[in-house]
Amino acid sequence: MNVLQMPADMQSHAEALRRKGRTIAFVPTMGFLHEGHLSLIREGRQRCDDVIVSIFINPTQFGPDEDLDNYPRNLQKDLTLCRELAVNTVFTPDNAALYGDHYQTCVTLEKLPNHLCGLSRPVHFRGVATIVTKLFNIVKPHIAVFGRKDFQQLAVIRQMTQDLNFNIQIVGSPTVREPDGLAMSSRNAYLKPEQRVSALCLFKSLQMAQEMVRQGEKDTRKILAAAKTLIDSHPETQIDYITICDPDTLEDISEISRPVLMALAVKVGRPRLIDNMILNS
Amino acid sequence: MNVLQMPADMQSHAEALRRKGRTIAFVPTMGFLHEGHLSLIREGRQRCDDVIVSIFINPTQFGPDEDLDNYPRNLQKDLTLCRELAVNTVFTPDNAALYGDHYQTCVTLEKLPNHLCGLSRPVHFRGVATIVTKLFNIVKPHIAVFGRKDFQQLAVIRQMTQDLNFNIQIVGSPTVREPDGLAMSSRNAYLKPEQRVSALCLFKSLQMAQEMVRQGEKDTRKILAAAKTLIDSHPETQIDYITICDPDTLEDISEISRPVLMALAVKVGRPRLIDNMILNS
Repeated sequence: MNVLQMPADMQSHAEALRRKGRTIAFVPTMGFLHEGHLSLIREGRQRCDDVIVSIFINPTQFGPDEDLDNYPRNLQKDLTLCRELAVNTVFTPDNAALYGDHYQTCVTLEKLPNHLCGLSRPVHFRGVATIVTKLFNIVKPHIAVFGRKDFQQLAVIRQMTQDLNFNIQIVGSPTVREPDGLAMSSRNAYLKPEQRVSALCLFKSLQMAQEMVRQGEKDTRKILAAAKTLIDSHPETQIDYITICDPDTLEDISEISRPVLMALAVKVGRPRLIDNMILNS
Repeated sequence: MNVLQMPADMQSHAEALRRKGRTIAFVPTMGFLHEGHLSLIREGRQRCDDVIVSIFINPTQFGPDEDLDNYPRNLQKDLTLCRELAVNTVFTPDNAALYGDHYQTCVTLEKLPNHLCGLSRPVHFRGVATIVTKLFNIVKPHIAVFGRKDFQQLAVIRQMTQDLNFNIQIVGSPTVREPDGLAMSSRNAYLKPEQRVSALCLFKSLQMAQEMVRQGEKDTRKILAAAKTLIDSHPETQIDYITICDPDTLEDISEISRPVLMALAVKVGRPRLIDNMILNS
């Protein structure tokens, strides 16, 4: 397994692979890999000749009050996991190599970030779209795999990829959950035992909403109210947002007449957790 | 010579060229080709196996009061000129193919656009950086050639290329001038005969400034004042800006201690013309 740090080395390697006719699957991560990331890597492994995983905690997608400094890290374990999954190359750039002294360019989207997580994280998706543009140019993949847990991120990247004419297939991979239903997240590592119990309220509220829709409920206000009551009944929870919206535009929906996205972010103690589900009648 | 209209066709063709190991020089234009464009094409012809010229009048780099609708066009003549210069492929996309219904992504720079032309054309460089990003992803060149007449555009594109990790060499090609010194521009076609005479004031003021610097003048206020007087003495001229600045950051300079950029934009009747020169002592 190659471990490359310099963008120029990664880029030369990717171009050499392409000249040989090899296909590249790319899995961008911020490290501290869990079963969710591993499912993305396996997805890439099945689809392409080479799998390239990047591990980079991108500072520009964190707001000033967010958890950049405390974001969990474990590079040695990450590399072991990548080796076990037959990853071909791990790209581990540092900050200075990606954002030089005179750095001043960013990629922004006009509509998709103005919903869900974008409302409480105003610079987040600009940071995401910019780093992914950079990584796409460095890694030159044929496909890139992202988790559906970060539904809005996946939507932003799909749109950006299309708008900027990247010839890259964006693959959305299903959310991987703990046995009790909690969506896997690097941030789960922050949860204290009693918070870990409360954290299940995200998945429970999605399940409850799905059940209400299946039984014929079409009024999203009623569903959201019931979900809020459920979440508020769990200790240490604080809702950031909870919404039912159009899966393409992320715009709020009041009456359900087709499959819709329910998405939510809840702080459980300090960690802020997200989850989502497509609700079908 | 290939003439391709669809981005997907252009992209497939570029990828096929790269797989064959051929190098690609790219010359992006808005058409109505003049001797300045032809010099860019010749530069590309000398450096790479394949030369690809794009002809696209990009609407997003024009402000609401600018000359998008009246921008001069002559596709048949452009194609003839490209054929004569042994261009391999001309890419002539239409608006709908590049900016679809849900289009919402743009590439912005934080500093370089806040000077010179960017001040009177606030959306211009966002439009330029975005379309060039798109075209780079479609044409996949090894080098791209731009004229130094649009000095700020060249600076923006160099910075964007570096910041977004495009592995593309940006070549700046010298300004081509009419025999009397007027910088070639598609917009010169708008000039009435008496305006054509006045238009020479841009080049004359640059020459005068160069001569003042050669004779030891270091105070940029004195040089700019003399240049303004010269320009104002020509009928139908209206200065948009005239500045002496750092060629890298484009920030104003008051005392000359190294090579500096003098740049100006002057409306001559309705057409707005630009020119620039590096002043050496």
